Amino acid sequence: MSGLESVLIVGTGLIGTSIALALREHGVTVHLADRDAASLRLARELGAGVEWDEGTRVDVAVIAIPPHAVAERLSALQKAGAARFYTDVASVKVLPLGRAAELGCDLTTYVAGHPLAGRERSGPAAARADLFLGRPWALCPTEETSADAVETLHGLVKLCGGEAVRIGAEEHDRAVAVVSHAPHVAASAVAARLADAPAAALGLAGPGVRDVTRIAASDPALWTGILSGNALPVAEVLEAVAADLAAAAASLRSAADPAAMASVTELLHRGVAGTGRIPGKHGGPPRAYSTVQVIIGDRPGELARLFKVAEAVGVNIEDVRLEHAPGLPLGAAELWVQPQAVPTLSEALREHGWHLP
Amino acid sequence: MSGLESVLIVGTGLIGTSIALALREHGVTVHLADRDAASLRLARELGAGVEWDEGTRVDVAVIAIPPHAVAERLSALQKAGAARFYTDVASVKVLPLGRAAELGCDLTTYVAGHPLAGRERSGPAAARADLFLGRPWALCPTEETSADAVETLHGLVKLCGGEAVRIGAEEHDRAVAVVSHAPHVAASAVAARLADAPAAALGLAGPGVRDVTRIAASDPALWTGILSGNALPVAEVLEAVAADLAAAAASLRSAADPAAMASVTELLHRGVAGTGRIPGKHGGPPRAYSTVQVIIGDRPGELARLFKVAEAVGVNIEDVRLEHAPGLPLGAAELWVQPQAVPTLSEALREHGWHLP
Repeated sequence: MSGLESVLIVGTGLIGTSIALALREHGVTVHLADRDAASLRLARELGAGVEWDEGTRVDVAVIAIPPHAVAERLSALQKAGAARFYTDVASVKVLPLGRAAELGCDLTTYVAGHPLAGRERSGPAAARADLFLGRPWALCPTEETSADAVETLHGLVKLCGGEAVRIGAEEHDRAVAVVSHAPHVAASAVAARLADAPAAALGLAGPGVRDVTRIAASDPALWTGILSGNALPVAEVLEAVAADLAAAAASLRSAADPAAMASVTELLHRGVAGTGRIPGKHGGPPRAYSTVQVIIGDRPGELARLFKVAEAVGVNIEDVRLEHAPGLPLGAAELWVQPQAVPTLSEALREHGWHLP
Repeated sequence: MSGLESVLIVGTGLIGTSIALALREHGVTVHLADRDAASLRLARELGAGVEWDEGTRVDVAVIAIPPHAVAERLSALQKAGAARFYTDVASVKVLPLGRAAELGCDLTTYVAGHPLAGRERSGPAAARADLFLGRPWALCPTEETSADAVETLHGLVKLCGGEAVRIGAEEHDRAVAVVSHAPHVAASAVAARLADAPAAALGLAGPGVRDVTRIAASDPALWTGILSGNALPVAEVLEAVAADLAAAAASLRSAADPAAMASVTELLHRGVAGTGRIPGKHGGPPRAYSTVQVIIGDRPGELARLFKVAEAVGVNIEDVRLEHAPGLPLGAAELWVQPQAVPTLSEALREHGWHLP
């Protein structure tokens, strides 16, 4: 059976408390545990659940603590018979699974998990019931995991609004290395160049470099932990990226040689191919959209009026990027719409006095 | 005198035609020249100006052709006495200035320039009179350049809506290497890893990697030209980035050693420092804004209603990021506002039934 009536959240940080809030919205009884009394009290005050009485047995125990501590806690909880099934939410999966095996944990009741969600803030105060809405949530059952455990965890993910993605632990760790951990370090390395650059250079910075380096603004301590927990897969990706960049640099030093520049062009082509594989909204390629550019003023209501025009002609704006001008009260909005909506929206905006190219 | 009544645009591509359109809006007489008759005709039909009669002398000739061809054209135009002053718009500046000196051009009348603006599309059909609005526009006069030439070019930039940034040619080329050219190659190298990754890995991709790799979707041929024209400064930055990434990889391979991980943490800290130096809207740091998150439905008018609420309480939304969920009709909007506007906007949105964390 896969009924989910009661859950124990071990660790009332951002992820743990968010899971608690999401499950509470579906009537699940949530018990909370945290060694930090202040964090536990705050989570309770936020309505995340009640303090766990260690005698209470639940359907699922969610271990929401740092990766290095997961297996020891799992072992202790299993010895106490705290739950029918167990999961964790750490951003790496080989490490906790390996240590759980070493510690002799019961692997039939444990489904290692990783919701791909987060915020730039941490702690229970930043928690949101909708944190996982539509986000992938990796589940990494092993050959030993029972079908009941897997089914129950799929149900938990669904209640939280997440999209369960079943994947092996090693495959998971290599995947997050390439789509998250290594890109983070690369963004940091590009941003580190800006730290040393003269002020005049920053004056020529535009939206491109801002996008490339945005994630490099995150908390270094948090990311050091994530990277050290997935060290080898991340190292492999970074070595490949570093080799490509070193080769590009060498080619540029021989830029007069067309063969050297051909290898740079080839890297740029591989980059284009890679970007085309990133799923966009609804899983489709983001480049399926067309854009409409419009000049906007910097006053309240400017965007409201713009979206109202789109609504009036039945056009859904899939995404919007604002690009503001330093020192000027004007900017450009780039509206992403279905290609067939471009003429309709453009005409409607022009009719309402918007300035389009 | 710095009067600007007539301009010759040599090269009616995206940048040349956009300058023509911008100047026409201010009553400047614009003459057009292009060796490609179709491009010239299209620019004329777009209202960019009239075909240049080679006997006509203008105030400023704008050479809007690829960097490698600028100096030869400058020399020919000067020999024909085509203009009082000359400029170009190439994305590198040492190369055209150096070749102009070699060819014995008159450097008193030439102000090398580079408007920091572009689009993912090219050609006259993509041109916009507002392309330069609020964008930096580098001007690189040398010791030989006359004050009149500099003053006239400042006037031209202003008429186009750009913000003139006076900078030396070598400083310019090093600056764009660090804020534009090298980040582009780094984004390509990260995206290239995605090209080889298993499909399951892409299923775990989120907004972070999408931002890092966005610019890597640009035209490889165009970028090969840009990179080869600024080869050595870009190579230097890429070597530094590659060295940082190789060092991070080596540290991760010794992740059990706290000293090794400390060097990774230090790189992450340098990255944070670098992102903090990127100017945001109005030249201020982007992190001066706070964000309000709100859950939105995927139907026409959803954002219009949201912005209307903001308007009603007098809150200006400085920037907005939409984050959509694969396979779900819901997404989260992140609204950037002045920190003091957060409570007002949050309360107003909740009152109108929006779902906020």
